[in-house]
Amino acid sequence: MKNVIVGQSGGPTSVINSSLLGVFKTARDRGADTVYGMVHGIKGLLDGDIVDISTRIKNDLDMDLLKRTPSSFLGSCRYKLPDIEGNEKTYEKIFKILKEYEIFAFFYIGGNDSMDTIKKLSDYGAKIKSPIRFMGVPKTIDNDLAITDHTPGYGSAAKYIAATTKEIIRDGLVYDYPVVSVIEVMGRNAGWLTAATALAKGEDCEGVDEIYLPEKVFDVDKFVKRMGELLKKNRSVVVAVSEGVKVADGRYVCELADHVDYVDAFGHKQLAGTARYLAGKVAEKYGVKTRAIELSSLQRCASHITARVDVTEAFNVGGAAVKAAFEGLSGQVITLKRVSDDPYMCITEPADVHFIANVEKKVPDEWITDDGTNVKPELTHYIRPLIQAEIMPLWVDGLPRHIRLQSETEKKAK
Amino acid sequence: MKNVIVGQSGGPTSVINSSLLGVFKTARDRGADTVYGMVHGIKGLLDGDIVDISTRIKNDLDMDLLKRTPSSFLGSCRYKLPDIEGNEKTYEKIFKILKEYEIFAFFYIGGNDSMDTIKKLSDYGAKIKSPIRFMGVPKTIDNDLAITDHTPGYGSAAKYIAATTKEIIRDGLVYDYPVVSVIEVMGRNAGWLTAATALAKGEDCEGVDEIYLPEKVFDVDKFVKRMGELLKKNRSVVVAVSEGVKVADGRYVCELADHVDYVDAFGHKQLAGTARYLAGKVAEKYGVKTRAIELSSLQRCASHITARVDVTEAFNVGGAAVKAAFEGLSGQVITLKRVSDDPYMCITEPADVHFIANVEKKVPDEWITDDGTNVKPELTHYIRPLIQAEIMPLWVDGLPRHIRLQSETEKKAK
Repeated sequence: MKNVIVGQSGGPTSVINSSLLGVFKTARDRGADTVYGMVHGIKGLLDGDIVDISTRIKNDLDMDLLKRTPSSFLGSCRYKLPDIEGNEKTYEKIFKILKEYEIFAFFYIGGNDSMDTIKKLSDYGAKIKSPIRFMGVPKTIDNDLAITDHTPGYGSAAKYIAATTKEIIRDGLVYDYPVVSVIEVMGRNAGWLTAATALAKGEDCEGVDEIYLPEKVFDVDKFVKRMGELLKKNRSVVVAVSEGVKVADGRYVCELADHVDYVDAFGHKQLAGTARYLAGKVAEKYGVKTRAIELSSLQRCASHITARVDVTEAFNVGGAAVKAAFEGLSGQVITLKRVSDDPYMCITEPADVHFIANVEKKVPDEWITDDGTNVKPELTHYIRPLIQAEIMPLWVDGLPRHIRLQSETEKKAK
Repeated sequence: MKNVIVGQSGGPTSVINSSLLGVFKTARDRGADTVYGMVHGIKGLLDGDIVDISTRIKNDLDMDLLKRTPSSFLGSCRYKLPDIEGNEKTYEKIFKILKEYEIFAFFYIGGNDSMDTIKKLSDYGAKIKSPIRFMGVPKTIDNDLAITDHTPGYGSAAKYIAATTKEIIRDGLVYDYPVVSVIEVMGRNAGWLTAATALAKGEDCEGVDEIYLPEKVFDVDKFVKRMGELLKKNRSVVVAVSEGVKVADGRYVCELADHVDYVDAFGHKQLAGTARYLAGKVAEKYGVKTRAIELSSLQRCASHITARVDVTEAFNVGGAAVKAAFEGLSGQVITLKRVSDDPYMCITEPADVHFIANVEKKVPDEWITDDGTNVKPELTHYIRPLIQAEIMPLWVDGLPRHIRLQSETEKKAK
């Protein structure tokens, strides 16, 4: 028996299911007997919540729907494996389950934390001389993984953000009075997503006026002053701000409000509110109309607008992971390597998971303007190829059609 | 000379430029010499800011881009004409300008306030026995105009909201722990837009759990209690709430927060914050993860997702207004009349502006469930035909292409 198992972990992207399809299809093409899916990642594996994917993705139509379905088809988890030392029981349990299912190769689609899972499992596997192969398939809208040129999921999120920003810019100019629009973009520590708003600028669009990334210290007073200067020049001012911008003393801007909305169940302060806070400051100072626009979770789930380049690459990293595992590799992550810039071309390349897990890639300083209020052309040049081309939803009765693992009703009946 | 003039007024919709195109193209086809555009509506007219549209929309490509461009191409205003009595000077000025430009017919694309403009101008015209014809072309995402079956702009906004809601619902189920997502939808007094979230439910989607319209009094405690009950049944709870929901004493829910973010330049309290407030209450009470998602101004400007039915109807009401004016009508608004439900068919029909201006159409009580927590199937049956079919953006270098009247640089140079 040559069975494989695949799981999805961490926050979803619009193309995370294309990577799942890449693993599923390639594994079957290469002779895998059964392709299992962990429901809610490694946590589902530990709970024995495992499905035979072929019972859910039955034909070509299902596959095309899977590519267009937002959120992680198999469900996800935010579960970090404990250190091996002192927690051998957890690892013994995992490997016992993998043995039961006669698993030959294990694939995990995810970001930094998920690559850490691959690292620990392959380390433990090597220690006990297990023949099981462990491969990481990268994804994250945040684009903050090391070594890889970019991460699958980033291009589609960037495309959504840029397209939406263009619409907001046009909308901001509709009236004949001054308006300041503050767009809040995801990215706690890395500004890649916020930088994508720079793509809006072009022959048909004024572009955003300023862009603030979390890589630079944020100064609220300077920001408010800059808005005043921009208001003297432009009727409509549109700026993009990362949700993760911090002031000099290390506090997030959204923490400066005299109220904190709430702390979530995990003790994380809700980061949202940066745009709202800044818009309030500007309205207070200049008495102009302001708008705070949070792009919210749509950045990771707006699958009605994806980049075909991204969908294809997401599929390819999944497929390449299977190929590498079937050829004997383990403890590797499939990275994307840009072999040509003009024309843009990326190939897949396996890299040792130890060099990737737990390393965070930020926007390099030389791609940000010195005053920290914008990004340089090198950065848009880097992003532009990643948002190219489209993949259209399958429209049914006026709405994009999706596919789900199981309805909640089926789940409860189980 | 047979010149016409057209203006856009009030908040934009994704298809307001299709109505502009309908006026422009039909007027030219019917022999108008020049089709003028008021820049920023009646306010621009008073300031002499008038353009010859054919110098901006020059060919078929421009027309196709115009259809796909968000925001009001000519610019808009929020300007209500004063009462005729005692303000004759304003009217004399307007009619003097119209005479200078040898205007034969005047078209105004807008919502309630704009129809009031048509009413006053045609009343004044009748009083002074002016031959100029005044026609209203309805638009508003809010769908709150009287007489017409629905308003152009509503269908596309509803499609955007429903498609986005489907994505949020899938995304909400990604983890294995409980999450409550509160989606805040536009609509200060009428719940039509919020009701569109009901369209998400289908073979491939669980749908939203509850829907709260501004037509019903909102009870915060009851809401929080309901969320608790839903959390017992479902891992992910998704509810849609209108930004305009009010508690029994008449205050907006977003005003209940112990902080008011800010009052805008017009003295309007910023309504946004309803979802945030409610999500905070739920998090506080149950200690679960919550998400507050404001669909924001994208509801009126997300032109990358529009309903072809809506685009066509928007064009048609513009064209029908020209036809009616050329046939001698004045002081009328073009309405949509549903002549068949199955198959869906709407025709255009002129209606006296006096029956439309300043009347607000709300969601009828019999389409809302008795407990006020959802809408009835009759309502989705009414909306569903309006979101049908698609019109794709023209994608250039990875993003939807738009067309603008003039760049801000050109404008400054002027």
